[in-house]
Amino acid sequence: MKNKLTAKQHATHNTIVTVGKIKIGGLTPTIIAGPCSVESEEQLLKTAVGVAEAGAHLLRGGAFKPRTSPYSFQGLGEDGLKLLVKAREKTGLTIVTEIVSEKYIPLFEKYEVDVYQVGARNCQNYDLLKALGKVKKPVLLKRGMGTKLEEFLLSAEYLVHHGNPNVIMCERGITTFENYTRNTLDLNTVAALKQLTHLPIIVDPSHGTGIRSLVTPLARASIAAGADGLIIEVHQKPEEALCDGQQSLNLAEFSELVDQVNKISHAVKK
Amino acid sequence: MKNKLTAKQHATHNTIVTVGKIKIGGLTPTIIAGPCSVESEEQLLKTAVGVAEAGAHLLRGGAFKPRTSPYSFQGLGEDGLKLLVKAREKTGLTIVTEIVSEKYIPLFEKYEVDVYQVGARNCQNYDLLKALGKVKKPVLLKRGMGTKLEEFLLSAEYLVHHGNPNVIMCERGITTFENYTRNTLDLNTVAALKQLTHLPIIVDPSHGTGIRSLVTPLARASIAAGADGLIIEVHQKPEEALCDGQQSLNLAEFSELVDQVNKISHAVKK
Amino acid sequence: MKNKLTAKQHATHNTIVTVGKIKIGGLTPTIIAGPCSVESEEQLLKTAVGVAEAGAHLLRGGAFKPRTSPYSFQGLGEDGLKLLVKAREKTGLTIVTEIVSEKYIPLFEKYEVDVYQVGARNCQNYDLLKALGKVKKPVLLKRGMGTKLEEFLLSAEYLVHHGNPNVIMCERGITTFENYTRNTLDLNTVAALKQLTHLPIIVDPSHGTGIRSLVTPLARASIAAGADGLIIEVHQKPEEALCDGQQSLNLAEFSELVDQVNKISHAVKK
Amino acid sequence: MKNKLTAKQHATHNTIVTVGKIKIGGLTPTIIAGPCSVESEEQLLKTAVGVAEAGAHLLRGGAFKPRTSPYSFQGLGEDGLKLLVKAREKTGLTIVTEIVSEKYIPLFEKYEVDVYQVGARNCQNYDLLKALGKVKKPVLLKRGMGTKLEEFLLSAEYLVHHGNPNVIMCERGITTFENYTRNTLDLNTVAALKQLTHLPIIVDPSHGTGIRSLVTPLARASIAAGADGLIIEVHQKPEEALCDGQQSLNLAEFSELVDQVNKISHAVKK
Repeated sequence: MKNKLTAKQHATHNTIVTVGKIKIGGLTPTIIAGPCSVESEEQLLKTAVGVAEAGAHLLRGGAFKPRTSPYSFQGLGEDGLKLLVKAREKTGLTIVTEIVSEKYIPLFEKYEVDVYQVGARNCQNYDLLKALGKVKKPVLLKRGMGTKLEEFLLSAEYLVHHGNPNVIMCERGITTFENYTRNTLDLNTVAALKQLTHLPIIVDPSHGTGIRSLVTPLARASIAAGADGLIIEVHQKPEEALCDGQQSLNLAEFSELVDQVNKISHAVKK
Repeated sequence: MKNKLTAKQHATHNTIVTVGKIKIGGLTPTIIAGPCSVESEEQLLKTAVGVAEAGAHLLRGGAFKPRTSPYSFQGLGEDGLKLLVKAREKTGLTIVTEIVSEKYIPLFEKYEVDVYQVGARNCQNYDLLKALGKVKKPVLLKRGMGTKLEEFLLSAEYLVHHGNPNVIMCERGITTFENYTRNTLDLNTVAALKQLTHLPIIVDPSHGTGIRSLVTPLARASIAAGADGLIIEVHQKPEEALCDGQQSLNLAEFSELVDQVNKISHAVKK
Repeated sequence: MKNKLTAKQHATHNTIVTVGKIKIGGLTPTIIAGPCSVESEEQLLKTAVGVAEAGAHLLRGGAFKPRTSPYSFQGLGEDGLKLLVKAREKTGLTIVTEIVSEKYIPLFEKYEVDVYQVGARNCQNYDLLKALGKVKKPVLLKRGMGTKLEEFLLSAEYLVHHGNPNVIMCERGITTFENYTRNTLDLNTVAALKQLTHLPIIVDPSHGTGIRSLVTPLARASIAAGADGLIIEVHQKPEEALCDGQQSLNLAEFSELVDQVNKISHAVKK
Repeated sequence: MKNKLTAKQHATHNTIVTVGKIKIGGLTPTIIAGPCSVESEEQLLKTAVGVAEAGAHLLRGGAFKPRTSPYSFQGLGEDGLKLLVKAREKTGLTIVTEIVSEKYIPLFEKYEVDVYQVGARNCQNYDLLKALGKVKKPVLLKRGMGTKLEEFLLSAEYLVHHGNPNVIMCERGITTFENYTRNTLDLNTVAALKQLTHLPIIVDPSHGTGIRSLVTPLARASIAAGADGLIIEVHQKPEEALCDGQQSLNLAEFSELVDQVNKISHAVKK
């Protein structure tokens, strides 16, 4: 392994990334939840209030969306950030949203985005990683769908080496020959990363499976494998979502997920 | 999906495969443990006694070994079966061992092997599956490393269609670009199979990771994902194993695994 | 690499496998053609005559078919072998057909099958390989869809180590995340094998792509990469085929393929 | 397929991308060659003169290098662009170099870079693609190592949809379980793209194999599969290269490659 600063043996303790009152990488799993995209004030606020009540610790929602097709909904942009700020004010949840280019850093600073997400497609966009190394806020780094474990660690190394120690790694499924599920969630890598790095690791079973009914079992499995938290797509009305509706939970399903995940978390620590 | 007899909707209840006093697919997870290969009487009996004491329900051990290289240890053959019978007599554990060709069925019948294992490399060896459809004993069917979910279900369908309803499916990792681990354990498929078929599903985290320190976290994750049991490579002295030592647990590690898995199992059912 | 007898440096010359008057591994590419399955006398004989006229050197056709679903056509069995013999008598083409279990060896000997094919799903069925090591006829060994280059060489090593030096290796596509094509034809491995082993290597672009319109470009590419021959699915009426019609060429398309491949072969040797 | 402007049926003729006097997508294959990275004036000029004499049509060389590790040589940056301009002046070859962020567009315009390369790791960096849609120069778009055929077409669609019709697609190998080679060159996709889009397709067998001795056979195969050109790593002294030396050809090997590729090209067109 060529990584240095991110290696387990480089630190005496595991890194705990603090966001507001939440500690990611500590004793209890952190749950980030919210819609794939910010679509409207009503959609975002209802979902935000719902996930807060159900026990989420941070709110996710995409304002700038990297979509495979140029003809798909590309996100609300700055208006999306404004709605996220409203949701933060209303619920007290800090916000996680994706940054797709360093040119948006000033905008993210203006709206005081709490956690900057690097999406899977930008996991090896090293210029973006270098720029985010200089940012003061934590970065949630998603693994690319074709990125090997060592390459993933080295992308995290770019962030730390360029000045930002507050990195949360996120496994979100890799491309394999199995196409019943959208991706193959790689929990081997989650367990391995817990032994190889001091950084916190969370899991995205929504993208990792792409199928609503599989999200909760894989959320349980992620925590059992040792993950420090989860990022879950939740929509107040999944059937109306502009993006990823088939993998989004509704609020009742999310509430049940939180309950089950907490039971697993207690069992792991006993 | 082209499978019929193995489909969830074909049955009113999940299939429970009974082996001696053990019920696979019931309320508690079944744990199969033992060495990769049967190597000697001392090795097998010590390991068998140890895993029985630690809480294993069945004993595994290979007598006929399908090895990638013709120059690797190929197993003890019939002598291995005899030692498995001795271990069964001594511990009361029923035995699971791999059958690599239908020509060995009379030998397996002579020694009253309790569960016939089909290895990953024979998952789509349809002539073997047809022959095992006519056998009276349960079959443990491992997924091939390049076998898709639907193909895996259809291999199980061969067994049931040809007359053997007592099939235990086993996820053991697939080949992907990630080569830090030996294979990529696909727990998406485990959760999906629980929704698609009434057959029990167990997981092999030993082959699924290939790395000793990852076996226990992935065993926990497998049960949390909904698996009905586990098959674990255990060796009384892993460092001396003739096969797969680097992924085998010693007896103390296995005992700890059983303890952790039971806690997860209780948490899933709460 | 753990292979020995199959390694390039083990031999002073490349192995040439002789089948009747045909030399596989020599100066000109060998073309094997015919239907996926033997379906009827009319279908087989028309196709056989057609491919012979177009320049095929051997006739392929499956009598025992390893099908993913137990509900798919499983082949004509012994009746298929009889029809292959008729086609051999009529056209003078020697015959290649798949053997799915060692129990059929006596039947293959009775009908004097010229080349025994091991299918992709049996590439690591080591008991079958050991049995075919003792057969007098050449073996065409297909790579498994999840079999690594070194594992493929070691499967060939089983055949040679157990007594049969007449092995033809065949690349037929591997499973990858790309699912536009049925498999991903791996011509890297073809070029690498030409440097690593003295055995002849042929390519199956029919299974390797699964799409009729891609067969001829990939056949050209295979020869340009250094392959010693091709195995091509041809059907007199592809739209009526019981198996793999969408990847089968008709006779006119096959004739055009032979023409193009010969031009590439001349260009490679210039 | 969700792509529109890039679809075959959208255009009456195949797109020919003109760079100086070179037409990419026309009757003869275009060969782009040069070092992985621009390292020094001597290295670049000697290699440039050499590849020009051997028959290359454009010069490649990286000034801004996206390296997996932050501790690897990251390229000479603007100084590298200056050296490329010198090499262009000396040899008359137009230049292709990678752009890793839209912030470098003014610099690329200042040095009049002829073709802007988007690397594999940025294939789905949609903000970069949108920005390059507005550039006047052609874009060479490499496929990501985990990018499916349709996703690759949609990345090209971003460029065309945002205003730049001069797109050259480039297959450079995908990640698969096969790790004998660095990547698996996917020539299925090259042949398929020739049928699905009017844009020119070139192939990079240097990254596609990662092994020097495999570059020429796969270059031949690429042209035989229908590719419109090649991009080849060449170094005057591969053993001293700061980057990718093990997959770089020396000048004599490159000259031989050009010769062989031209023969295949003639054979394809006969």
